Amino acid sequence: MSKLILSVVQNSPEFGQVQANIEEALSFIPAKTELAVLPELFATGYQFVDRDELASFAEPVPDGPTCRALLKFAASNNCAIIAGLPEKSEDNIFNTSVLCKPDGSVEIYRKIHLFWAEKLIFDPGDLGFPVQKFGNFTIGMMICFDWIFPEATRSLALAGAQVVCHPSNLILPFCPAAMITRSIENRIYTVTANRIGTEHRTDLSSTFIGCSQIVGPGGDILASLSDNEVGAATAEIDLMTFDKMMTPQNDVLLDRRPEFYKLK
Amino acid sequence: MSKLILSVVQNSPEFGQVQANIEEALSFIPAKTELAVLPELFATGYQFVDRDELASFAEPVPDGPTCRALLKFAASNNCAIIAGLPEKSEDNIFNTSVLCKPDGSVEIYRKIHLFWAEKLIFDPGDLGFPVQKFGNFTIGMMICFDWIFPEATRSLALAGAQVVCHPSNLILPFCPAAMITRSIENRIYTVTANRIGTEHRTDLSSTFIGCSQIVGPGGDILASLSDNEVGAATAEIDLMTFDKMMTPQNDVLLDRRPEFYKLK
Repeated sequence: MSKLILSVVQNSPEFGQVQANIEEALSFIPAKTELAVLPELFATGYQFVDRDELASFAEPVPDGPTCRALLKFAASNNCAIIAGLPEKSEDNIFNTSVLCKPDGSVEIYRKIHLFWAEKLIFDPGDLGFPVQKFGNFTIGMMICFDWIFPEATRSLALAGAQVVCHPSNLILPFCPAAMITRSIENRIYTVTANRIGTEHRTDLSSTFIGCSQIVGPGGDILASLSDNEVGAATAEIDLMTFDKMMTPQNDVLLDRRPEFYKLK
Repeated sequence: MSKLILSVVQNSPEFGQVQANIEEALSFIPAKTELAVLPELFATGYQFVDRDELASFAEPVPDGPTCRALLKFAASNNCAIIAGLPEKSEDNIFNTSVLCKPDGSVEIYRKIHLFWAEKLIFDPGDLGFPVQKFGNFTIGMMICFDWIFPEATRSLALAGAQVVCHPSNLILPFCPAAMITRSIENRIYTVTANRIGTEHRTDLSSTFIGCSQIVGPGGDILASLSDNEVGAATAEIDLMTFDKMMTPQNDVLLDRRPEFYKLK
């Protein structure tokens, strides 16, 4: 298996309507998709007024209702799903991305770099940037604001990720262009799943910019959605057709010279 | 001094016409400029057919003819200059950027990441990514293809650079957008000085894309040139008006979590 049919899902969840949001998002996944990427906190919505409210929505993984629904869909449709949810683990609440596979297994990433008010209600991720095997592919996950730290995507690429999946609730306008840079500088596929809509449950109004996209290792946008639609976009990727060399003399990972970097 | 008048110079050198190329490039620098950034190899041209030809153009720093001309201009015009030249140092030839100050001092950066055929004729840089004091500002230098390695700009920013100067001979189309990402992810000014024109002295034709630009820490393009003009663009930057925080809760450098990065 060197080919993979990837879909990116863009939704507009209604805050707190978890079951309805799950059903709608899953309904957007095109038939034949082998790996679908959904947004950050895709089922709950984003603006929790405080940690208590967040706690009321947080769920254990894999035994919470959202994760169970994703696993059921994955098994029934032979389609893996990556999606964001608030994860309860002992006294912590993480902003987590789950990879739910058709075989019933679940892998997680806990958001390392929290954005703005998230710092007041979530605990920062504590598991680093693991990669996951998926058939012959190596997958990595990062979440939303992680995009601004090149170390996130770089850590995944150096660990072997060929496809970095990026559930998001983007507000700032810079990320879609930056993810093209992330693809080029690491020579990898990136899949950013964002939401649309506006929430105004706290002092700040948050409008989410959509523009979900699948970007190829050369920086080409393979599939995308606009800033005002819900649905999905799909691309088939093929590792066999992809040349890891940027030029006949340059490999962007092997050309690194860490002995000269000062990154502490 | 919290303000600085920066100019980026875009030229179209004729290969090998060093003296004429120097005079033309310096003529483009607007009056009142305090720091001018010129392209990589701005006076020699780019496509050396082999190392012997390169060696015939390489010069010691600061005692070579190009560096002396830049120092003379800097002193006469009270304007520092950053520019690229082939540097001879013992048996090595580096793709070097010099910072020539009005006081007669010179600082250098030797290109760490060589692009394509450069690997066959230049020696790779051996001095890392130093930063330089310039009045109250801290400056850093990188050259052209260094842009694709986020570690280059990051190393400079972590060492305190507020302005990263980037002499270039860009061929690939991705860099101008990527430098916006470099500004945002490090919250710094970036100044990319590129050339235009085409050289076809080797098997490959190289067409240089121009699009020189000065980018602000928020990703805003403060000044730029097109893909088919020579001349200069100028911006006054003011560190006092600049907020290092991206949001009330986020500083893109202090928010880094190196304990979770795997960058070796």
